[in-house]
Amino acid sequence: MKVDVFFSPAVVDEASVEGRTAVVIDVIRATSTIAEALANGAKAIFPTVSAEEAVKLASSLGREDTLLCGERKGLKIEGFDLGNSPGEFTAGSVEGKQLVMTTTNGTRAFAAVEGADRVLAASFMNLSSVARALEGVSTLVVVCSGRENRFSLDDALCAGMLLKNLESGLEVEMELNDASRVALDLATLHEVDVDFLRSTAAGKNLLDVGLEEDLKLCASVDRHTLLPEMRERRIAVYPEKGTDL
Amino acid sequence: MKVDVFFSPAVVDEASVEGRTAVVIDVIRATSTIAEALANGAKAIFPTVSAEEAVKLASSLGREDTLLCGERKGLKIEGFDLGNSPGEFTAGSVEGKQLVMTTTNGTRAFAAVEGADRVLAASFMNLSSVARALEGVSTLVVVCSGRENRFSLDDALCAGMLLKNLESGLEVEMELNDASRVALDLATLHEVDVDFLRSTAAGKNLLDVGLEEDLKLCASVDRHTLLPEMRERRIAVYPEKGTDL
Repeated sequence: MKVDVFFSPAVVDEASVEGRTAVVIDVIRATSTIAEALANGAKAIFPTVSAEEAVKLASSLGREDTLLCGERKGLKIEGFDLGNSPGEFTAGSVEGKQLVMTTTNGTRAFAAVEGADRVLAASFMNLSSVARALEGVSTLVVVCSGRENRFSLDDALCAGMLLKNLESGLEVEMELNDASRVALDLATLHEVDVDFLRSTAAGKNLLDVGLEEDLKLCASVDRHTLLPEMRERRIAVYPEKGTDL
Repeated sequence: MKVDVFFSPAVVDEASVEGRTAVVIDVIRATSTIAEALANGAKAIFPTVSAEEAVKLASSLGREDTLLCGERKGLKIEGFDLGNSPGEFTAGSVEGKQLVMTTTNGTRAFAAVEGADRVLAASFMNLSSVARALEGVSTLVVVCSGRENRFSLDDALCAGMLLKNLESGLEVEMELNDASRVALDLATLHEVDVDFLRSTAAGKNLLDVGLEEDLKLCASVDRHTLLPEMRERRIAVYPEKGTDL
């Protein structure tokens, strides 16, 4: 298995993802929130890069069953239904709804891998499910959302733990790029918990805006067993319940 | 001491370097070659981003005492005097000369930190000299040149070994960004030698173009004690011999 990890969506070009399976990671908080929302019955999530695009898309989807979600500088965008705290995405809020979501870094990463054969969303909350889904994949691309295109330790550790999990089930050695090796190194040195996340730049940012509570959910390894997948810019668990796929 | 490591010049903005001391690292091979060239009597090195700019600058400096140096895809640029192999920069070739040098990644990193208070060039070859020069600095920026703006393991390990060296002489704890923490982690797990460099993406590239030999010099920790510094886009050891500074 050939594995390329990228620490920023900005360095991912078309050639890097074409024909491959891609995993997007944004531990704090987009992919954690996506896992929580789908586990609580949200039908689908549509990631958009800009808030304007989110508003437009929500209006075209029909506002009744659609929630506008997202943050800027960590806080809910004014006029939106929900922010980006996984804890907000309860069954009471999201069950049966479709969500349009714009976040600072995570949605950029989804946009960067649109050309991949398959796109999965991983966080600590659904790590083992994603690892299982990757068994048998020949070329894997893992895109860490980072922070403003810069390196983010929480995402890199999550990538490393994913590879470690994956490696234990493989019979052949993985062919790793430089960033994959570092991610695996991180997974040998660190375990994830609230204290670890609090020590990262992204974690500190949440503390600064009073959202430290979010870190508990973000650090909950394998809280869910679901596999969020993006098809045609729409993230859901496929095949969908109640469809004839 | 506040320390920010960046794994790519592309993510370094003006605000990140203004008023700070910056260290540029391009182990394979620009900063290794710079150390070797200065140790062998080169007067100064002028980094330029493009080959066209290099030719123009060399001609304005006067071609007698000036050598045109640089590579594209690892190999010497056609018509240039030297490539980017440290071993080419012998006293016989470079003593008393000024060098105009364009390389794929290293010269981009120098361009990215032009706004810093002070700019130093580090490689494994002059690690301890740079660490000593940084004692007493309050805010440090370390820019890894990377490869095509992507993460490069050799540069990251060098940054980590620099910080480890620096840390051992400090009485206060360093304030580290996410990337600095990873660099330090790497320095606890790895030591540099030819085999390590050969295993990196940049090392493999050299193998592919038949320049494996270069890795021996690039891995020679503290081969030199000099401190290359960039002033007004000119890299030399300051104060210069024969000047009244």
